[in-house]
Amino acid sequence: MFDKVLIANRGEIAIRVMRALRELGISSVAVYSTADKDAQHVREADEAVCIGSAQPAASYLNMQNIVSAALLTGAQAIHPGYGFLSESEEFAQLCEECHLTFIGPKSQTISLMGNKANARMTMQQNHVPVIPGSEGFVQNSQEALQIAQEVGFPVMIKAAAGGGGKGIRKVTCAEDLADAFLQAQEEAQLSFGDNRMYLEKVISPAKHIEVQVLADQNGHAVALPERDCSLQRRQQKVIEETPCSVIQDDERQNLQEVALRAVKAINYENVGTIEFLMDPQHNFYFMEMNTRIQVEHSITEEVSQVDLIKEQINIAAGQNLSLTQADVRIHGTAIEARINAEDPLHGFRPQAGHIQQMTLPGGLGIRLESGVTSGDNVSPFYDSMIIKIIAHATNRKLVLRRIIDALNEFEIQGLTTNREFLVALLKQPIVQQGEYLTNYIDKEFLPLYTMQADVSEEAD
Amino acid sequence: MFDKVLIANRGEIAIRVMRALRELGISSVAVYSTADKDAQHVREADEAVCIGSAQPAASYLNMQNIVSAALLTGAQAIHPGYGFLSESEEFAQLCEECHLTFIGPKSQTISLMGNKANARMTMQQNHVPVIPGSEGFVQNSQEALQIAQEVGFPVMIKAAAGGGGKGIRKVTCAEDLADAFLQAQEEAQLSFGDNRMYLEKVISPAKHIEVQVLADQNGHAVALPERDCSLQRRQQKVIEETPCSVIQDDERQNLQEVALRAVKAINYENVGTIEFLMDPQHNFYFMEMNTRIQVEHSITEEVSQVDLIKEQINIAAGQNLSLTQADVRIHGTAIEARINAEDPLHGFRPQAGHIQQMTLPGGLGIRLESGVTSGDNVSPFYDSMIIKIIAHATNRKLVLRRIIDALNEFEIQGLTTNREFLVALLKQPIVQQGEYLTNYIDKEFLPLYTMQADVSEEAD
Repeated sequence: MFDKVLIANRGEIAIRVMRALRELGISSVAVYSTADKDAQHVREADEAVCIGSAQPAASYLNMQNIVSAALLTGAQAIHPGYGFLSESEEFAQLCEECHLTFIGPKSQTISLMGNKANARMTMQQNHVPVIPGSEGFVQNSQEALQIAQEVGFPVMIKAAAGGGGKGIRKVTCAEDLADAFLQAQEEAQLSFGDNRMYLEKVISPAKHIEVQVLADQNGHAVALPERDCSLQRRQQKVIEETPCSVIQDDERQNLQEVALRAVKAINYENVGTIEFLMDPQHNFYFMEMNTRIQVEHSITEEVSQVDLIKEQINIAAGQNLSLTQADVRIHGTAIEARINAEDPLHGFRPQAGHIQQMTLPGGLGIRLESGVTSGDNVSPFYDSMIIKIIAHATNRKLVLRRIIDALNEFEIQGLTTNREFLVALLKQPIVQQGEYLTNYIDKEFLPLYTMQADVSEEAD
Repeated sequence: MFDKVLIANRGEIAIRVMRALRELGISSVAVYSTADKDAQHVREADEAVCIGSAQPAASYLNMQNIVSAALLTGAQAIHPGYGFLSESEEFAQLCEECHLTFIGPKSQTISLMGNKANARMTMQQNHVPVIPGSEGFVQNSQEALQIAQEVGFPVMIKAAAGGGGKGIRKVTCAEDLADAFLQAQEEAQLSFGDNRMYLEKVISPAKHIEVQVLADQNGHAVALPERDCSLQRRQQKVIEETPCSVIQDDERQNLQEVALRAVKAINYENVGTIEFLMDPQHNFYFMEMNTRIQVEHSITEEVSQVDLIKEQINIAAGQNLSLTQADVRIHGTAIEARINAEDPLHGFRPQAGHIQQMTLPGGLGIRLESGVTSGDNVSPFYDSMIIKIIAHATNRKLVLRRIIDALNEFEIQGLTTNREFLVALLKQPIVQQGEYLTNYIDKEFLPLYTMQADVSEEAD
């Protein structure tokens, strides 16, 4: 086991990893940008190293500085958290070269899953259902048209190296296809230096369902109960729950078998997530794999009673998983709400500022994962998610009540957050019934919420 | 079920009860003294009524005002919390007379268990082992001497109506007995207007072990896994854990059977706690029954997965218990640390002041029950316990690590607390091994702690 681990991240996930390290008796090294010198993750760490200025490129994305900090402090491993360098093949490789254990999968696995067209092909070859579309890359717009006509419109044209909404076009009819293909390809070349494209049918409306997987270096793998992450705004998850309330036991078992097949196919090691779309007939389609821990891992921890961060560290140290598939249980139900420093009534504009006072919720079934405390500053340079509130209960009705109550108890002075937006969302009948789909917030809830807010502002 | 419940308490327990009420869809009425007008329990309640000035006698102990507040707001029931009026037979009776449901046992049960000699007799008659001593009351010092010689010295002479250390004397030899008896009797007469006395052998060293019981109005009763509350300073609990790490399964079962026998014997209704002393040979002796919810109920909730406050409310509304004895399980282990506003290095003097900033711990397995938030004032009028930190884990080693880490994360500016004292205590080998006894803090730990603190102060 490691003696010392560097955490190449900030905020709540850095603190989450630190807590796991402490419980394993491992020293923690925090890294920080100049903007974060007084941040909570710096205060809580055993050691802390400044790695650059506020801009992420200069610090949290600065591979050389992070690796230097690890070598300087004598850390034997690096936990990348989520975001930043967590899915960087190059960073994982650099760690490998410097004899630092990257707490995650091997760099070639990150590479394989990072190329979305390759990931898709690999899954197809291993009988994991993928969204109807191209086999491998699409060479040109003629080929794209032919496939689109086979699978039916609308389709998505996507850059294989894609991410962040670049090099992607939705096409609803044959006439628009050639132009869209060329535009997307050009954008892909500019953004990623890689113009390889692929094509998928649009599965919509759908639910975003994902399966948490764990695999050690000794051939053991486990799939945990699925998360329903369909409550998204512009493809960003807002609220997540587990298990999905509309999935039956046999579907769940099937989904876990498929996920394990995918894990075996790529010899996956460490913790990861396989994301699926589920159509109204409950067909599942592989979407992509996240080769890292995710924000929403906490709800799975509550329901499966597995400490996923400790598993990550143990796996990276060569240990066996702490459980087998036969040990997997569903203990109640859990839901997570992400508190973002943003203004929902003004285009969700990120907010920066000083937290004057803060009242956190608590009590039975409430877990907090926070990266800030009262008196802290929220800087404009990083992700707006500052606190996660996780509710756990024996049944779904109670967990919904509990998360709403907790959000109502939460108070922050000096900073606008999305708290009221989350409460309003959770109270919607379609959310209460668990039948929301990925387009629900953007298409239905947000217009309604904004309208009501306008009316109430006028009434003031 | 009730529509509205008044909470005749303050601080963390008032908020705890409020959360349960919300989850049951019941409105809450807070009461407050003028010193508490801005307190968190007032802010969180649906309604709040001022019941008097800062001194407890004028407000939180003012039965008339509390009952008036309930009648005025249309509350149908009163939850007394712990402390204050929670074990007042008179208050329970007043509620009964005013057709308000007192969320607790019947007034005559409070009365029966409140008279310690009667409680002792009742248990004896129902084959619940009691501490060797008198049967019923002791008439005079001659009778006391005879019993003391039978059971062996040292003995305690106690006022039947006793509490708070009044009317009680420890006697180590026959020569001292007559004087001690007369002094204690005189004190009892002065303090309680009742000079009835009883006698018990001193069981020491011992562990304080208590059993949480639940009983509904329909004849069902359940005993939950025991708590070890032996870490006490001057008979005040400091840290509690469940289950007790040195009690075996068969002993546990026996203990629960004895507790259930006691519950049936007195037709107990609602939630209560039966306190036992356990001697080094693991013999259990009934000490007393607390006819109310206790501070440390939260650890039992974590390990038994029973919401004790909801059970209290449901029982008072005439519903059945949500579980049977066969449903009782032990899910891991839990420990509670009480954060008190007090100065351990200066005689544990209570502290009052303004909480400038506060950083609460969080993460996997950490539950918080707080009555204050940053920006609040802690007033000198009430109990110094301001926050409970509860850790839950799969095993005892981990839960000890987790509670220590949580205490280390906890930070408060503007107020001295016992945090460091708690951390130092939890790190002691005897605590780590679970073998501490009720005299450990006063006799062994405190002299050591104070000495080390003196040395470190000198070194500064």
